[in-house]
Amino acid sequence: MTKLISLLGATGSIGIQTIDIIREHPQQFKLVAFSAGRNLEKTKEIIREFKPTLVSVQEEVDAISLKKEFPSIELAYGSKGLIEVATHPDASILVNAVLGSVGLEATLEAIKQQKTIALANKETLVTAGHLVMAAAQKYNAPILPVDSEHSALFQSMNGEKRSQVSKLILTASGGSFRDRTREDLENVTIQDALNHPNWSMGAKITIDSATMMNKGLEVIEAQVLFDMPYDDIEVVLHRESIIHSMVEFHDTSVMAQLGTPDMRVPIQYALSYPDRLPRNNAKRLNLVEIGKLHFEEMNFERFHALKLAYDAGRAGGTMTTVLNAANEAAVALFLNGEIRFLQIEECIERVMDKHSVISSPDLETILHVDAITRKAVRNMVK
Amino acid sequence: MTKLISLLGATGSIGIQTIDIIREHPQQFKLVAFSAGRNLEKTKEIIREFKPTLVSVQEEVDAISLKKEFPSIELAYGSKGLIEVATHPDASILVNAVLGSVGLEATLEAIKQQKTIALANKETLVTAGHLVMAAAQKYNAPILPVDSEHSALFQSMNGEKRSQVSKLILTASGGSFRDRTREDLENVTIQDALNHPNWSMGAKITIDSATMMNKGLEVIEAQVLFDMPYDDIEVVLHRESIIHSMVEFHDTSVMAQLGTPDMRVPIQYALSYPDRLPRNNAKRLNLVEIGKLHFEEMNFERFHALKLAYDAGRAGGTMTTVLNAANEAAVALFLNGEIRFLQIEECIERVMDKHSVISSPDLETILHVDAITRKAVRNMVK
Repeated sequence: MTKLISLLGATGSIGIQTIDIIREHPQQFKLVAFSAGRNLEKTKEIIREFKPTLVSVQEEVDAISLKKEFPSIELAYGSKGLIEVATHPDASILVNAVLGSVGLEATLEAIKQQKTIALANKETLVTAGHLVMAAAQKYNAPILPVDSEHSALFQSMNGEKRSQVSKLILTASGGSFRDRTREDLENVTIQDALNHPNWSMGAKITIDSATMMNKGLEVIEAQVLFDMPYDDIEVVLHRESIIHSMVEFHDTSVMAQLGTPDMRVPIQYALSYPDRLPRNNAKRLNLVEIGKLHFEEMNFERFHALKLAYDAGRAGGTMTTVLNAANEAAVALFLNGEIRFLQIEECIERVMDKHSVISSPDLETILHVDAITRKAVRNMVK
Repeated sequence: MTKLISLLGATGSIGIQTIDIIREHPQQFKLVAFSAGRNLEKTKEIIREFKPTLVSVQEEVDAISLKKEFPSIELAYGSKGLIEVATHPDASILVNAVLGSVGLEATLEAIKQQKTIALANKETLVTAGHLVMAAAQKYNAPILPVDSEHSALFQSMNGEKRSQVSKLILTASGGSFRDRTREDLENVTIQDALNHPNWSMGAKITIDSATMMNKGLEVIEAQVLFDMPYDDIEVVLHRESIIHSMVEFHDTSVMAQLGTPDMRVPIQYALSYPDRLPRNNAKRLNLVEIGKLHFEEMNFERFHALKLAYDAGRAGGTMTTVLNAANEAAVALFLNGEIRFLQIEECIERVMDKHSVISSPDLETILHVDAITRKAVRNMVK
């Protein structure tokens, strides 16, 4: 049976690869609705190829111009448009691949419609994990991870009992700057930071990899998704990105998922779950060719952002919202040339230091804390 | 609920470790029957500790002497005794940890009684895999692998569909002589061969590791257990023995089971399946401490016995019976100082060359081929 898919963030890195998977498996998947930002050329291409029922873009003016060109397609825009795509009545799966906490409300609305959520938008879980997971349970909507690490954890728990898991082991490539000291980081450029050794990804996540905040967000995401205490979530530096993550069970067995670094594998898995579909032209893992896999201890002084993430996770409540919003704002400032690389984590730490945690915040509180945090970070450079 | 266990080969390496697991989990497991060879002291120890209902030993004279000391326990001996232990009416699980093809008939009888078979005796599957698997299917008796590699494959398929598996990847430590050339092997001693770098095992399997025949038997065992073609079963040299084996799926994902080399983990898994039980004092995997995992291509010229095993497996029918019987006989000759190390594979190749394959042999044919093969090997040194 063909699964009908709605996709938030179709023109981003994960969105484009999701579309690759849909294209490769026309019998299995059909794109019925998607959202895009301001890349109209790419948006038109996707419309022509997949003829979806509904498309949403960021700005009203773009929606109006697209409507003229594609009069038979329903057009929407803005955050209301995101929700319309996410809750499209035909779709059974929502792939949420937008960047940042803007994906939160759309996810919550899709959950209420009992969609299966393939979640690439980790900020959603970091910002408001308790709301998302509580809603998912209430409405019986499965949350399937798309991040390669969380997909690996999820796959490693296949057929296993969650109560018999003793530890989650996330692997980290180390990002663009893994071989540099903190002193070296003082004056790195945007271009340096965007040059990831293993994964081809969007700009924000590539910077997050360089600061190691990406792994920090993943630790929090793992805590939320799998309900494990922070003490039982470990990060190991594994520069080859071949073991995508591991689960230790209480009998000391460790299950792992391995593969060449290719985001289409976890994306496809979230779409095909519980089945696996062939990927005929994809590169297969050849461990002999790779020769060696390396594992090193994670240095929390060298990668201070990871420590901030553990701190925020342990503090709980609104502190992870602050961590995420401050990070998004600071990364934007860095990409805009307004702050230096090491100032990203400085900004985050400063707002975290000033924040008084609110426990079990509701959506309104989260959105408020998110907004004032971004503002506070931006004010730091004024 | 306590699982009642019968154990063949209680005083061997796997048997002793099986008893460790039963001792660690008195609520979960109870030993009701076991067989031993001629180690009477060890046999008495086990009787005193576990007070089983039935014990079988190799020789009648030992059975009689034990009966005098333990009048309340039922005593048996010889191959009939093996079958009595294997089919003990109280037991729901048979752990078959005897060495060599002597375990075959007992396994078949236990299957007819619908026991769950925890199979450490790989020779059973190499010698008569088609009979064992057909009987297991007919009587609905699960066959659970105890070998660490096959347990790893089995665990990697947890919650997965067998039809979506594309390749089995067995790892091989390389055995005692992995860093020696074939020329170096001309004059190695028994003591050299018995010195395995990673695993502490019995003499026969340690020699099989040194010749790489152990991995060859495992390839055939994997083919039989998981019904995969030989072209899709690969062996990779992995000297650390940390990844115990891997399964590639047709979406290119590879699932693996890892751990410190400790046979008690797969033994316990076979007993506790589908659950996992805690192993509180066991050494946990620490990849940072290990630092690197190495993978090298398997050299079939260097490890000629592995090539012989693939050849025998592809020839099928009685050829795997010949491979196994010739290997058992030749290893016995080597351990007895009657042939040199490299003559083990020479003996096997010679009898294989002369053998005309009989397809789908019945048990009688297999036992006959087994017997004449052993005789042929022994005649080579007369």
